[in-house]
Amino acid sequence: MNIGILGSGIVAQTLGSGFVANGHNLMLGSRDGANTNAIKWAETHNAKHGTFSDAADFADIIFNCTMGIFSLEAIKLAEEKNFKNKILIDAANPVDFSLGMPPRLTIGNDNSLGEEIQKLLPDTKVVKALNTINYELMVKPNMLNNGNIDLFICGDNDEAKSTVADLLVKEFEWKRECIIDLGEMKHARSTESMLLFLISLTMKYGTFKNGIKVYRG
Amino acid sequence: MNIGILGSGIVAQTLGSGFVANGHNLMLGSRDGANTNAIKWAETHNAKHGTFSDAADFADIIFNCTMGIFSLEAIKLAEEKNFKNKILIDAANPVDFSLGMPPRLTIGNDNSLGEEIQKLLPDTKVVKALNTINYELMVKPNMLNNGNIDLFICGDNDEAKSTVADLLVKEFEWKRECIIDLGEMKHARSTESMLLFLISLTMKYGTFKNGIKVYRG
Repeated sequence: MNIGILGSGIVAQTLGSGFVANGHNLMLGSRDGANTNAIKWAETHNAKHGTFSDAADFADIIFNCTMGIFSLEAIKLAEEKNFKNKILIDAANPVDFSLGMPPRLTIGNDNSLGEEIQKLLPDTKVVKALNTINYELMVKPNMLNNGNIDLFICGDNDEAKSTVADLLVKEFEWKRECIIDLGEMKHARSTESMLLFLISLTMKYGTFKNGIKVYRG
Repeated sequence: MNIGILGSGIVAQTLGSGFVANGHNLMLGSRDGANTNAIKWAETHNAKHGTFSDAADFADIIFNCTMGIFSLEAIKLAEEKNFKNKILIDAANPVDFSLGMPPRLTIGNDNSLGEEIQKLLPDTKVVKALNTINYELMVKPNMLNNGNIDLFICGDNDEAKSTVADLLVKEFEWKRECIIDLGEMKHARSTESMLLFLISLTMKYGTFKNGIKVYRG
């Protein structure tokens, strides 16, 4: 499968490595396609690198791993036509660290980045996923509690959510019963704002590797 | 011990029942002290009932179980002098359901109800606690996963947080290792915004009895 990842930082690279290791064709996309580190990473990891637009055009399925505060701009640069009828997995959070810790959300409460991206790409099946989990855990959930940690997804297209769940189970051994579909994309308000909590945990414990499991009665 | 609870709804009553069952003196407080249901409940549960001010004055330790969107007003009515040098456990969330589901927070992101209450009562040791958990679980955490669910607390006074943790362990069998002190009161931004997520879970599963456990690497 051709996988395109918007972003070329550690999240994009880690997710990219996971897909390359599983035999997929991968392209990272960045603003100008000339990010030296990203090009070097791609060359040494049997992957391609290009602009946001190149990566979206190349892909059967696209991941948004840009910083959430820049995601809408990145997606505009990637051009709507390159996403048409495809699945876009939005793993970003609109978290602004510029005013110190704890950070704040630039979109939140009665709106979310996931919703804004879906509005921007009406012919694309946007699925919010992986945004509540550290990048290492995205591809190796078994690092914590034998993989018994929950992943919360949402989006307005049921078939796309099901495809994304299948992909994560198959590629990275997420346990199917741990992938919790919260419903429509408006529930991205919940999973994005959970970042504030996850960052509080990180500030306390000094690790980003936090996973949560929900129990119910 | 004399326990005062601001509020007279199901959260206040359930918490109140727990303390009465353990032999404490309990007073519920409401706006005008003449809430018929609350008076009846108090009479049949060996508890007292009065105004917000009466309940705060009566208490050695006070719980805020009012609806979060009214809590600041309730606390003003209860009068600052009645809280002086006492511990106030703030179990409320500033969640507004008036515009439909999912709800929105009336205070959030770079502020929290917990912080606003602490500002209102500078001589009171405010501890944010119990706001991430359904009322039944507050007094019976063992209902879920053998009590292995986490409770997140925060506040600016370490001794007060320790007292609150002791109280919850002693009175309601919370497991000490499950009471996670996230730090200063500003982390109430995290635990209050987690309500959006907990409500998403409730909308999905149809139960308020959700508990979460954090795993870390």
